[in-house]
Amino acid sequence: MTATPLITLTTDFGISSPYVAQMKGVLLAQVPDVRLVDVTHAVPAQQVVAAALILQDSLPWFPKEAIHVAVIDPGVGTSRPVIAARSRHGYLIGPDNGLFSLFELREVVRLDRPEFWGKQVSATFHGRDLMAPVAAALARGVRLDRLGTPVDDWQRLDLPRPQREDGKLIGEILFADSFGNLITNLTANDVPVPPHQVSLTDHRFRWVGTYGEAEPGEPVALIGSSGRLELAVVNGDAARTLPSTGRVVVQEAAAGCEAAGDGVK
Amino acid sequence: MTATPLITLTTDFGISSPYVAQMKGVLLAQVPDVRLVDVTHAVPAQQVVAAALILQDSLPWFPKEAIHVAVIDPGVGTSRPVIAARSRHGYLIGPDNGLFSLFELREVVRLDRPEFWGKQVSATFHGRDLMAPVAAALARGVRLDRLGTPVDDWQRLDLPRPQREDGKLIGEILFADSFGNLITNLTANDVPVPPHQVSLTDHRFRWVGTYGEAEPGEPVALIGSSGRLELAVVNGDAARTLPSTGRVVVQEAAAGCEAAGDGVK
Amino acid sequence: MTATPLITLTTDFGISSPYVAQMKGVLLAQVPDVRLVDVTHAVPAQQVVAAALILQDSLPWFPKEAIHVAVIDPGVGTSRPVIAARSRHGYLIGPDNGLFSLFELREVVRLDRPEFWGKQVSATFHGRDLMAPVAAALARGVRLDRLGTPVDDWQRLDLPRPQREDGKLIGEILFADSFGNLITNLTANDVPVPPHQVSLTDHRFRWVGTYGEAEPGEPVALIGSSGRLELAVVNGDAARTLPSTGRVVVQEAAAGCEAAGDGVK
Repeated sequence: MTATPLITLTTDFGISSPYVAQMKGVLLAQVPDVRLVDVTHAVPAQQVVAAALILQDSLPWFPKEAIHVAVIDPGVGTSRPVIAARSRHGYLIGPDNGLFSLFELREVVRLDRPEFWGKQVSATFHGRDLMAPVAAALARGVRLDRLGTPVDDWQRLDLPRPQREDGKLIGEILFADSFGNLITNLTANDVPVPPHQVSLTDHRFRWVGTYGEAEPGEPVALIGSSGRLELAVVNGDAARTLPSTGRVVVQEAAAGCEAAGDGVK
Repeated sequence: MTATPLITLTTDFGISSPYVAQMKGVLLAQVPDVRLVDVTHAVPAQQVVAAALILQDSLPWFPKEAIHVAVIDPGVGTSRPVIAARSRHGYLIGPDNGLFSLFELREVVRLDRPEFWGKQVSATFHGRDLMAPVAAALARGVRLDRLGTPVDDWQRLDLPRPQREDGKLIGEILFADSFGNLITNLTANDVPVPPHQVSLTDHRFRWVGTYGEAEPGEPVALIGSSGRLELAVVNGDAARTLPSTGRVVVQEAAAGCEAAGDGVK
Repeated sequence: MTATPLITLTTDFGISSPYVAQMKGVLLAQVPDVRLVDVTHAVPAQQVVAAALILQDSLPWFPKEAIHVAVIDPGVGTSRPVIAARSRHGYLIGPDNGLFSLFELREVVRLDRPEFWGKQVSATFHGRDLMAPVAAALARGVRLDRLGTPVDDWQRLDLPRPQREDGKLIGEILFADSFGNLITNLTANDVPVPPHQVSLTDHRFRWVGTYGEAEPGEPVALIGSSGRLELAVVNGDAARTLPSTGRVVVQEAAAGCEAAGDGVK
């Protein structure tokens, strides 16, 4: 730990909620000089996949010694465990529901030692009563292996993988970001740039390098700032005007005869 | 005051507003090392009751020496006073409109000394021009009794109290939280857990210990993280789908004959 | 630079976006003790005029040595330059699109030195990959003139100026703030207080000194906290219920014969 610990918070509490502040109060009461940063509190409610991707995109930008708390917790109040783990991008604390699937976890403990929790643990707010106190303990220099019991197994999400079919690349929409852009499971590593054609059901998208190249209202495909293929409507909200599920089909190059017989498909 | 003062901000300015930042600018210009925390800026506009409950729920989690500024101020620009007070949970600063009714105030002053305010005080933004400079003064170590004139009387809200009627407990909905859950004036101290039945007009609610126990769409009643009886629709928005006023009736136990003659009432 | 640098962030990323956090991660990784303040992330998408006015209203409240980063950037991905400048209200960093038109810029450089940028610069997120690293460099004490090439010319917005016509003052609505109040290009310097009459198309507004003087639902005109003439519906949303464009007509005083022949016009 450095002299001034850094803790980030990611939740689905909503941007209007005072509950985040209660977690911050707990953290500041225990670690007066802690630096607190909100990643987002607008994760779609209980959407663990969206949260996992947001964490994957955001946490690597922070200092490597940061402590990251994520409270997207459909199972709160049930017996699902809460875990803390070490990763290349700092410590991670959250419910064991797959939130951290996209990180390589090095040392994982199940948080089962109430001496590190708040005095009272409400059934509905483990973020404040369990995870925040444990984050504070880590920030004060308590070792990870003192906070709970080491475990070898934890929940992992089974995210859809890109498929190949008839020479085409097939992806899926994972979630809509806060601009309404549809984020897919295809990345810059999968898609040759520029691809010949990108479609979703019967919608076709013009390939652009940046939003600045397109006209307002135009459906476009591009590699977004997170390195994923995004489908967007320029100055619009793709999540409202396009299907939010379905196969994203990327035709990588114009094949010989197809190119000749333009319009064949 | 500690070496690094902590000031929290609670307003109804809205989550999009730059006005909060103007208050932060004033505070940082006067107290460069101040730590600032947002409680929420999404208090429903001018709803002093909702704000008072949010403050009651949130402030006790912060360090005891914190300074809490609350700007929910329907009377701004009129002659309503602004007060500062000492409480067990730190200093409180805000308009004298009942915001702090749920705290035990120990020393209250009316902020009537312009030498502690900003150079110019706009008629519409006392949060920035009066309350923030006074908070900065407290943070710099100015004593409360130097900031204004001691007063013995201040506004208090008259919140509805739980009633008993025909052996039932009768409560009221106070406000809807940011999830749309309906928060009542009944607390864990009033309600025997589990109660026999909870209803609101002709809606009945299943009693659950936690949200995790219920099915999506199910109307449930539970003691929420703030210790109050909440009525909720799991994964839904109770504030939109249920009445937001009316008597909340808690039947504490199945009485002998009533239980026998099920449906009598 | 002071020992603990202060950086503010203003964007149109939206209040739900995790992209702001990525910028904060970059800043904290390079300047561990930086203080970060959000001005707002709810600038209407790509509305440079609204952003310029928000910056004008907000930045002067901050300490004079602050570094202000603004990312309202319709041209991201095109060849529009990014600039950094010195002003009386601290350093300003943002795309060269007129965002800083309402500040007197003293030393302006075009940010064309990739050695001060992030390792990779995505086409769509210059806020994180270019502006944040440059802000971090300034915060660490790098001189402005080392960060880019000095320029003498930059974009300026051509905001409409108040007009006079038949003895009346004619203004325009510039944007709606987060309360729905319509903000005009007329300031306290233009409008004699109280004016005889304020109208927008066929709507007339009662002049008030403060919102507290008016009745809920009443259309009022007043000088708001930013010193501009605002048109508002008390406890309502003027942007939804009134025209959002059109001439704002201020009749400064009742002229002799007009006053006699009440209703002449």
